[in-house]
Amino acid sequence: MEHITVKEDGDTVRITMNRAARRNSLSYEHLSELLSAFEDAGDSSASGIVLAGEGPVFSAGHDFGDVASRDLMGVRDLLQLCTALMKTIESVPQVVVARVHGLATAAGCQLVASCDLAVAAESAGFALPGGKGGWFCHTPAVPVARNIGRKRLMEMVLTGDVIDAPTALEWGLVNRVVPDEELDAAVDDLLAKATRGSRASKAIGKQTVYAQLDRPEADAYAIAVEVMAAASQLPGAREGMAAFLEKRKPEWPD
Amino acid sequence: MEHITVKEDGDTVRITMNRAARRNSLSYEHLSELLSAFEDAGDSSASGIVLAGEGPVFSAGHDFGDVASRDLMGVRDLLQLCTALMKTIESVPQVVVARVHGLATAAGCQLVASCDLAVAAESAGFALPGGKGGWFCHTPAVPVARNIGRKRLMEMVLTGDVIDAPTALEWGLVNRVVPDEELDAAVDDLLAKATRGSRASKAIGKQTVYAQLDRPEADAYAIAVEVMAAASQLPGAREGMAAFLEKRKPEWPD
Amino acid sequence: MEHITVKEDGDTVRITMNRAARRNSLSYEHLSELLSAFEDAGDSSASGIVLAGEGPVFSAGHDFGDVASRDLMGVRDLLQLCTALMKTIESVPQVVVARVHGLATAAGCQLVASCDLAVAAESAGFALPGGKGGWFCHTPAVPVARNIGRKRLMEMVLTGDVIDAPTALEWGLVNRVVPDEELDAAVDDLLAKATRGSRASKAIGKQTVYAQLDRPEADAYAIAVEVMAAASQLPGAREGMAAFLEKRKPEWPD
Repeated sequence: MEHITVKEDGDTVRITMNRAARRNSLSYEHLSELLSAFEDAGDSSASGIVLAGEGPVFSAGHDFGDVASRDLMGVRDLLQLCTALMKTIESVPQVVVARVHGLATAAGCQLVASCDLAVAAESAGFALPGGKGGWFCHTPAVPVARNIGRKRLMEMVLTGDVIDAPTALEWGLVNRVVPDEELDAAVDDLLAKATRGSRASKAIGKQTVYAQLDRPEADAYAIAVEVMAAASQLPGAREGMAAFLEKRKPEWPD
Repeated sequence: MEHITVKEDGDTVRITMNRAARRNSLSYEHLSELLSAFEDAGDSSASGIVLAGEGPVFSAGHDFGDVASRDLMGVRDLLQLCTALMKTIESVPQVVVARVHGLATAAGCQLVASCDLAVAAESAGFALPGGKGGWFCHTPAVPVARNIGRKRLMEMVLTGDVIDAPTALEWGLVNRVVPDEELDAAVDDLLAKATRGSRASKAIGKQTVYAQLDRPEADAYAIAVEVMAAASQLPGAREGMAAFLEKRKPEWPD
Repeated sequence: MEHITVKEDGDTVRITMNRAARRNSLSYEHLSELLSAFEDAGDSSASGIVLAGEGPVFSAGHDFGDVASRDLMGVRDLLQLCTALMKTIESVPQVVVARVHGLATAAGCQLVASCDLAVAAESAGFALPGGKGGWFCHTPAVPVARNIGRKRLMEMVLTGDVIDAPTALEWGLVNRVVPDEELDAAVDDLLAKATRGSRASKAIGKQTVYAQLDRPEADAYAIAVEVMAAASQLPGAREGMAAFLEKRKPEWPD
């Protein structure tokens, strides 16, 4: 990998954007490496993934040096790759936590919105700046709209201005805001809490939540009931219930 | 009824889970009684329903003693019954208020999310704990996802940790948080405010709101316009407008 | 125009409801004038639209004097006109900001919810009062439900009570709350920030955001990817990227 580092750390895979000189902007090659890293991590036995960035910012979004020379089909390829990355983050069986420092802008902010959970340093900022320029943040607005309210989304996409970390917390874009020097500890703490229990159960659970969101409630129930009934027969569910009834600590089989 | 008490109190039906020794866990029989009570209340002339729990907690969710012995089709029956209860709470013509004390966990938290309104004691807590165990809270996540933001939902389902009442208020899972000793008064106050006006109008209104949620806005308008036009011809609407124009107090015909 | 004033002010069109004696209630004629004004502004070269109200309140919603005499088809015509206005506010290429003072109730509150952005005076209030009367706020609940959470929506529609401006800000119904005497300045400040950049890019962006909301995420991406790829080839996008790469100020061609 040229643009990222991937480190296995116990049950956690740490994927770090490492293109600091370009503010971790997401060129085609950078996106390809991230997608590949998430696919590999998804196939691994890890229980959690942390997405972070080296250098002054988390990620500045697409690399205009890469976009400017592309025709429509070329940009379409780029955006489809980018979208595949976002969807993969949501579909891998692991819990994915964004570790956000500095700025997360445009597709960088989209990465934060697409991770299951996000922890931000107090000094971090978030923006969808395309709207105050020449290329609107159409695709970043997709997961951001599914994290925060509509008026707040419209403010972000129309003004393009940066919101600070406490505002991102209040609006629901991130789960925790901590002093900068406590960022790693807070990420690890949240990840530890979020990866307890049966892994197979949690993997199916995460995927089912994303499947049922943004649908009329009856459709959502139609999905959730069938999955939950089937999931009740898995070894993890059986062990969890048996341990509860026998008042002992469970031993997860997966 | 063995597991619940149902009390008619003026225009209010008070349904109270009364299986304190089992922390109001929702066995098949308990769910059946609740469904039956909500159906009966729905057919009554009451204007409001309060759902409460006796004992140390509001409800601990499904009863593992009941679930553990069931095969896939048996669990499916249980979950379909549970879902029928949640949908009935949303579809009865009355305003339904959850009175939450202690803990509301898993399907107990789902009950809170499914009620139209919720008032919580300061000391109450809310959790979707399946994710830190062996059986993920798939169906409880359906209405909870329709009450709070996505990152907050993911935190609840992935960590399984309890959020306190002020957090539930901030996230929008409940409407009021009050000192424990003021819980009954706050429930009655909110219910009184929510049951003013024409009952037929409000019943159609409540049902139409649930019908239009979680749909593209144009679809929602297609529903709401037709219902609102038809509803304008009902006696309650006619009386309300006439009273307003004649500057007198309305007398609701329904 | 009899019920509204329309003023071109530089790049801004200021549409002001001017039926103060009737609390800017939305009769058929008033709605027709508003729709016409928004359509004209939409066809103009303006970059922003401000919707305001003269007199003691922003708008009191439908005019019962107009509704009471209508049969079902007559009310249906009225509601379809009202809905066409709300959809036009969302679909015009300009950024639309609501300037809210006094009360915004029923369809008046719906106007606020339908504008892209909203700034409220500290003393402003918001309500969907139909539920405590005889004619439920079915259609106003459509965009309000897409601005705030479900429990809060149910509280507004069932109780009909007024929420104050700070509550509206906390719930996400408005973007800013300011001292009454600073309302105009705050509206102009937010509008100035929201209208920077390429107009064509922003117009397509705004429309695509509304198109992708309230859909399953994969459907939203299917829309956003295609539009964003096509939009990358527009003169504004080209200029924005070129200016960024050449470290110069962009000159928007549109």
